[in-house]
Amino acid sequence: MAHRCVYLDYNATTPIWPEVSRAMAPFLHEHFGNPSSGHAFATPCREAIDAARESTGAMLGCASDEVTFTSCGSESDNFAIDGAVRGFLKKNAGRGLPKIVTTAIEHPAVIEHLKAKAAFGELTYELVGVDEEGLVNADDVIDAIDENTCLVTVMHANNETGAIQPVAEIARRARERGVLTHTDAAQSAGKVPVKVDALGVDMATIVGHKIGAPKGVGALYIRRGTDLGDAKPFYGGGQESGRRAGTENVLHIVGLGKACEIVEREMDTCPKHLKAMRDDLQKRLVDALGGTDGSGVRVNGPRDDDKRLPNTLNIGIKGLLASITLMELSELLAASAGAACHTPDAATSGGATVSSVLEAMNVPMEYAVGTLRLSVGRHTVERDVERGAALLIDAAKRQNAGAPR
Amino acid sequence: MAHRCVYLDYNATTPIWPEVSRAMAPFLHEHFGNPSSGHAFATPCREAIDAARESTGAMLGCASDEVTFTSCGSESDNFAIDGAVRGFLKKNAGRGLPKIVTTAIEHPAVIEHLKAKAAFGELTYELVGVDEEGLVNADDVIDAIDENTCLVTVMHANNETGAIQPVAEIARRARERGVLTHTDAAQSAGKVPVKVDALGVDMATIVGHKIGAPKGVGALYIRRGTDLGDAKPFYGGGQESGRRAGTENVLHIVGLGKACEIVEREMDTCPKHLKAMRDDLQKRLVDALGGTDGSGVRVNGPRDDDKRLPNTLNIGIKGLLASITLMELSELLAASAGAACHTPDAATSGGATVSSVLEAMNVPMEYAVGTLRLSVGRHTVERDVERGAALLIDAAKRQNAGAPR
Repeated sequence: MAHRCVYLDYNATTPIWPEVSRAMAPFLHEHFGNPSSGHAFATPCREAIDAARESTGAMLGCASDEVTFTSCGSESDNFAIDGAVRGFLKKNAGRGLPKIVTTAIEHPAVIEHLKAKAAFGELTYELVGVDEEGLVNADDVIDAIDENTCLVTVMHANNETGAIQPVAEIARRARERGVLTHTDAAQSAGKVPVKVDALGVDMATIVGHKIGAPKGVGALYIRRGTDLGDAKPFYGGGQESGRRAGTENVLHIVGLGKACEIVEREMDTCPKHLKAMRDDLQKRLVDALGGTDGSGVRVNGPRDDDKRLPNTLNIGIKGLLASITLMELSELLAASAGAACHTPDAATSGGATVSSVLEAMNVPMEYAVGTLRLSVGRHTVERDVERGAALLIDAAKRQNAGAPR
Repeated sequence: MAHRCVYLDYNATTPIWPEVSRAMAPFLHEHFGNPSSGHAFATPCREAIDAARESTGAMLGCASDEVTFTSCGSESDNFAIDGAVRGFLKKNAGRGLPKIVTTAIEHPAVIEHLKAKAAFGELTYELVGVDEEGLVNADDVIDAIDENTCLVTVMHANNETGAIQPVAEIARRARERGVLTHTDAAQSAGKVPVKVDALGVDMATIVGHKIGAPKGVGALYIRRGTDLGDAKPFYGGGQESGRRAGTENVLHIVGLGKACEIVEREMDTCPKHLKAMRDDLQKRLVDALGGTDGSGVRVNGPRDDDKRLPNTLNIGIKGLLASITLMELSELLAASAGAACHTPDAATSGGATVSSVLEAMNVPMEYAVGTLRLSVGRHTVERDVERGAALLIDAAKRQNAGAPR
């Protein structure tokens, strides 16, 4: 069933690339030792983890010992925040609560973590807004830094709009203020270069299932010398050089390493393919639904294509109720919606739950409720784009032909 | 190479059972959707997670909504502790630091977590000792409870000695005192019944790679109604009914579910096989190395076989330097040692690092340095036992024939 369904939801998760599953298979069927053991069964597992750490470091442009494997992006983001907080408390006992500066469009793994820790009385935080293109202004971020600020965390690219944030500038200026920086690069990895020295950050999150590795693995880059004050995701054994306890997920770490190797190898080719597919998709939808004055659709996100991920199209279609359309098409087209409407009346009655990202961008409600989050990937082919576009155009036309709302 | 190596280290990790890897394979090669998505790709993944939660609940004798999947046993143990602490703070603001009562022989995921959180000034803890058989006395645990005690955590069975602790009695009496209980059942699952109502605990940890599922997955049983005060391993998305953020590790959760199904199905047969293999191994070593008065070996752990895991043999061989012997045999025999000696002189010079479990049991040094941690499993056959015993007997005899120490 899934196979006749067009997949345009790569930002939610990619498939596991065939090369990745092939690399993983021996660790599913054959090599099973605990990497911490001293005997022959441990060796292939330990060596595979070492190799994966090398590949991950190579993709990020860092040393392998700056890579800590985690179980997901949420773990990496939470860890980065906790680490900055603990590092601050270690050096600044009695100076008051540490503050985190971040943006209104971060992943819930950042915002919900900050909310919870603030409710526990462990930190304060400030959410900096974005402009109507979904871009953060570096000045706003830097202005939010105060003497208790221990971390600035700004995502590299937004998962919904693909907006690429000025992380390098923010990191450079935060560093001048003596403040650590973290970026969630979950969505940018594999689509644009994610090199930690070019970005200038102290920490960076990457996530397996956004780059062709399985769900259930991620990594946190931690720049050598960064003092995280004994913060760890978990305490226990001495795995990950003492940074994160827990028997290693060998299978998934192997997968992540192979995926990073592919990202690095294909950085000159894959993003071009993504952009060609995404641009084709965008053109089809805009041409068919934009109307004579173009107001039938609204492409949300940066107008400058260099500031938008090459695979992502966030498009609001006037008159469409995107969440209901996608529910109706759920066996034919896989994509995400920018707002949840549980009834057709929701859009006008105010019952629609618009994504916090579109809300922060002040996307008008008539476009927000009709917003589709479409994302192509390494294995998207023209036929997918053609078929996906046709399904959406047809649905939009049918919906617009219905009763006026 | 690994195949000519006899595997007697199931307590470190089991292989992935063939039925488990077969159940996982479709999720490696085919079904890849994000379970949170609303389209066709999500459905098989969501259904597979539901089924795995059912199987895990069935093994534990609880409802499926009492099972939270985690990335490892360390995460589960840390989560249980943090949850009890947060639950306490929520109800008892200003009452002082919460206290955790546990034992000296817990896994580092308990003890190191407590040490770290105590160093952060977030809790206090007390480690209750064990007797020379490695058994905890329920009275000692209950006596350690004070008015600020929020959790008693006692492992179900010890990973080194296999000593099965009086968890049911401890849980019953702690409950009378209004104190939550947790047990780390990582090692007992699959070897003896782990039914949460029989144990009477509020929380229980299980771990995939101890029962034939992959490394990188675990679960925490949380009894319905237990207030964990908004503690979560990670904050972010609403996965795991809001208990634990992070995109689900579908592949490994499927593996854990299948492994739990096998445990439940084979509970009448597998432990008998384990015991037969272990008893055979023990008899061979004791007969060959015990000497005329039996003092040549010391079986560490409970003398009452009902209080010892059926698969575990912790045996000290006088005159042996177990860690060095296992290093020498590393291509032929996979097992663990009870102490690390980096030089043959270490044993006499005090340079040996004896495991904290053997230390807590007051195992005499002459046996501690010669202690082997041997553990058999579902796929151990008589030939493995025969060959493993022969290798060890030969090594011990060679070592004893060498220069007197």
